[in-house]
Amino acid sequence: MIIDCHGHYTTAPPALGEYRDHQRAVLDDDPMAVGAKGEVVISDDEIRESLEGAQLRLQRERGTDLTIFSPRASWMGHHLGNEHTSRFWTEHCNDLVRRVCDLYPERFAPVAQLPQSPGVELTSSVAELRRCVEQLGFIGCNLNPDPSGGYFTDPPLGDHHWYPIYEAMVELDVPAMIHVSQACNPHVYTTGSHYLGADTTAFQQLVMSSVLADFPSIRFIIPHGGGAVPYHWGRFRGIVQDLQMAPLEDLVLDNVFFDTCVYHQAGIDLLLRVIPAANVLFASEMVGAVRGVDPTTGHHYDDTRRYVDAAEITDDQRRLVYEGNARRVFPRLTT
Amino acid sequence: MIIDCHGHYTTAPPALGEYRDHQRAVLDDDPMAVGAKGEVVISDDEIRESLEGAQLRLQRERGTDLTIFSPRASWMGHHLGNEHTSRFWTEHCNDLVRRVCDLYPERFAPVAQLPQSPGVELTSSVAELRRCVEQLGFIGCNLNPDPSGGYFTDPPLGDHHWYPIYEAMVELDVPAMIHVSQACNPHVYTTGSHYLGADTTAFQQLVMSSVLADFPSIRFIIPHGGGAVPYHWGRFRGIVQDLQMAPLEDLVLDNVFFDTCVYHQAGIDLLLRVIPAANVLFASEMVGAVRGVDPTTGHHYDDTRRYVDAAEITDDQRRLVYEGNARRVFPRLTT
Repeated sequence: MIIDCHGHYTTAPPALGEYRDHQRAVLDDDPMAVGAKGEVVISDDEIRESLEGAQLRLQRERGTDLTIFSPRASWMGHHLGNEHTSRFWTEHCNDLVRRVCDLYPERFAPVAQLPQSPGVELTSSVAELRRCVEQLGFIGCNLNPDPSGGYFTDPPLGDHHWYPIYEAMVELDVPAMIHVSQACNPHVYTTGSHYLGADTTAFQQLVMSSVLADFPSIRFIIPHGGGAVPYHWGRFRGIVQDLQMAPLEDLVLDNVFFDTCVYHQAGIDLLLRVIPAANVLFASEMVGAVRGVDPTTGHHYDDTRRYVDAAEITDDQRRLVYEGNARRVFPRLTT
Repeated sequence: MIIDCHGHYTTAPPALGEYRDHQRAVLDDDPMAVGAKGEVVISDDEIRESLEGAQLRLQRERGTDLTIFSPRASWMGHHLGNEHTSRFWTEHCNDLVRRVCDLYPERFAPVAQLPQSPGVELTSSVAELRRCVEQLGFIGCNLNPDPSGGYFTDPPLGDHHWYPIYEAMVELDVPAMIHVSQACNPHVYTTGSHYLGADTTAFQQLVMSSVLADFPSIRFIIPHGGGAVPYHWGRFRGIVQDLQMAPLEDLVLDNVFFDTCVYHQAGIDLLLRVIPAANVLFASEMVGAVRGVDPTTGHHYDDTRRYVDAAEITDDQRRLVYEGNARRVFPRLTT
């Protein structure tokens, strides 16, 4: 079985975007507007149509089985609006992902967006995580380390500001993928330098803080192949060694995992050469950041199964990457 | 001959740091203080002593010949003080590097720090670049894409704010290494996530802007192996392809170069597998960000010559990486 741990509902029916457009228009007039939660009216057939020609077709073509599926990351937009509108938006997005998984229980397992908002305590994020896990059967969440959208104005991940969500993750036994959303800082490009920079930044914050010591059973996935981390594994090992900390492997490998959203063979080979197979989870991010066909291979850039299949690892290691690690990191996954 | 294109004067005699401490103390009382430029009194013997047991010893031990040498990057501290104090500090740092190169002309070639300051036009940076190149024989500069120290408050590199320095670089025929300084944003760790994130961010800004089209002969070095870029070469290729831009290679490879400050064999192998040898310049950053010995190899993490020697490239390609590319990128280098 091949589990893809990183898929977003990037192809949601238009009514979802229209809801958000309306919410943003109200917020343009009054940034502190609360308004009503309202409705997102989407039929089951619209959901089926949005997936059949996209994620489901690509799963079949590529021979992958199950996608761990969450709302569109770039649309989380935690910097937009306020904590109330972020909660309404998040509940709709999560409810829609639940419906996807009900329609295709063998193909998708749900992961939650959280209603974060810059400068706001994580109380409503904890509540939404509980709702999604305890009432809706979600198996994990996406945690945005920078709800400001590229300005990093909230505290770093080592700060106690974040501890309520860590406590809930541990209690509920669900992991978080650390994933930023759309950038509003003109310095960074959302699906390139912003995603990759945030991945690298989040990893270093975990390394330099006491989060992993304070929550020994917590589990984080650093997406997009870990940003710059595996490529610079020697630098990160050397930095902690110079600081007379424990070896990097001892500091992080019980808690931190990397996905395979790296879109060329050389990158996947580096990832699997440097990071133990037990810490790598298969993922493609499809339909996501890069949708084209690589003219040098004739296949989609994000068809990462081809790279993992071609990597020089043992069959046992490949089974870990494709399935075993996902089941260990997401113990609530029962499909 | 082996040219190391990335070395900083991290071992400067104490009088340099004492000057800066004094300047900062004055600025703590009055952030807009100008004061006098003052003096940094350091003898030739002190300079020799600061290098003999460090950079010069390591050059000899590792069999490298010449280091392209600039003031300590983490000490540039463009976010500290104001444009006047940044200019005084920068002139002292550059003058000291000139003295190093006069004492050891076969071992060091000078590259300039610039007196940048957040929110300030680049007029004095252009003036200092001219002074260093035209009067002092410098062969390049370090350009900080984020003088705010981790908050990215100045315009991105594609903005015309930066064009005066690009125009001077082209006229003087000198390249810039894009290099941030110490971070004051608690989200990022200076020699880890800040350096690597800024490298990735700067690369993407160059790709998405018209800088390289507007200055066809300009040359930039992205240090630290290009941040996350080579590891994610497929993602960057795919992003520009989805945007119907020219192929990534056509967009950047005439102007953008990567150094080899990647501190493990797997990383260097990836770099040299993905990026054409003509775009890779040997570098170690010694004595720099990582100073320890890797227990898995018994050698210093930053002894990057070992990794390049062991990489599977042709002898012609290795000569380009070790010398040929540096001479092409730094045409004013005549040693």
